Amino acid sequence: MITLYDLAAASDGIRFSSPCWRVKMALKHKGLEFETVPWRYHEREKIAFSGSAIVPIILDGDSIVSESWNIAAYLEDQYPDRPSLFSGSGRSLALFTKRWVELIPAPLMAKTILPEVLELLHPDDKAYFRETREKLFGLSMEQLRAARDATLLQLRNSLEPVRSALTVAPYLSGLGPGFADYALFGHFMFARCMSSLQILEHADPVLVWRDRLLSAFDGYAARVPNIGP
Amino acid sequence: MITLYDLAAASDGIRFSSPCWRVKMALKHKGLEFETVPWRYHEREKIAFSGSAIVPIILDGDSIVSESWNIAAYLEDQYPDRPSLFSGSGRSLALFTKRWVELIPAPLMAKTILPEVLELLHPDDKAYFRETREKLFGLSMEQLRAARDATLLQLRNSLEPVRSALTVAPYLSGLGPGFADYALFGHFMFARCMSSLQILEHADPVLVWRDRLLSAFDGYAARVPNIGP
Repeated sequence: MITLYDLAAASDGIRFSSPCWRVKMALKHKGLEFETVPWRYHEREKIAFSGSAIVPIILDGDSIVSESWNIAAYLEDQYPDRPSLFSGSGRSLALFTKRWVELIPAPLMAKTILPEVLELLHPDDKAYFRETREKLFGLSMEQLRAARDATLLQLRNSLEPVRSALTVAPYLSGLGPGFADYALFGHFMFARCMSSLQILEHADPVLVWRDRLLSAFDGYAARVPNIGP
Repeated sequence: MITLYDLAAASDGIRFSSPCWRVKMALKHKGLEFETVPWRYHEREKIAFSGSAIVPIILDGDSIVSESWNIAAYLEDQYPDRPSLFSGSGRSLALFTKRWVELIPAPLMAKTILPEVLELLHPDDKAYFRETREKLFGLSMEQLRAARDATLLQLRNSLEPVRSALTVAPYLSGLGPGFADYALFGHFMFARCMSSLQILEHADPVLVWRDRLLSAFDGYAARVPNIGP
């Protein structure tokens, strides 16, 4: 049984971390049993054993692995007989896609919903979260809120390469989903868990793709507590 | 024998179009015989038969296909027994990569070298080229030249997802190159044909990748007339 340290909001049941969602989808994809341990930003000592200051972290027997790409590569190499996370993408384009997500849509997604996210965090996480995010983006929560509609439009526009890819296959990874899909999908789970905003327009093919992934693995992602559409 | 209409500079031998380079590399990848016809922007009537106002255009028997993605998909479907353009990437992530190239690094590459490009064009193409490009970017050639060093830095930074991908494989498409690689490589051929600028730093792994593609197919791309490194 694999253990995943999984970022939680004030409520234990709300698990909103994009990289943790990548890992949960990867574990489901591999058909591996796992349990999650809720973790908050201020609980540094709880994960000190791992050498990482942040989740996701998995324990698998004697192995400790942190960071979503490292975990995906570990699972792929450790469980080669399970369905591949990279069969439809290759390993290098899966990593390319993950880095694109982190550099282009992810910051826009964060800037769009951070003020809402802050409200739902554990009380002991709020000061840390506000300070680090305001520093990262060089904008206060109030400025982010004021710019929200413009940022949302930028976010939607940034997904254009995904829309192109979805004209030729149902997933970024082709006929079935893979890590390239989960790399982006994690951020839509972040939004769904923590924001009431309609991130994607109803006619957007990216929404159709998102909904396919919500339904995957018997609706695993669709069933978790959420406040968003 | 396939015929490719291929954008040329003032000199017949200088073939600098990024999308035409994607097609030439795809034809080489497929091992298909082809001849190229030099074409310039002002020769609209020469390609009117195709319904397209711009190259690349290929003639293959009775088939006329334009635009680099359409051509790649055509070649893949028409010649399925030849080496696949998408085997290491999947078709959807190859298209994703192409669109990313067009939206992020390609405009930065163009803005970096356009003043140099203008110098080498056919005299009858210069006015059209200056007007359309200045309108596209909202900047004059003089403004582009003044901003060149800053734009070049942005271009190098924009390639970060490629650098990540190249940490796990020699090509975006994995162990061997594919259309995802050619989609980006075309723009480096554009620069090599038309600019004396050192686009990539010597230690950049993207340069190692570029040089591998220059050497591919018995050095096909390395042999053409060029003014850049």
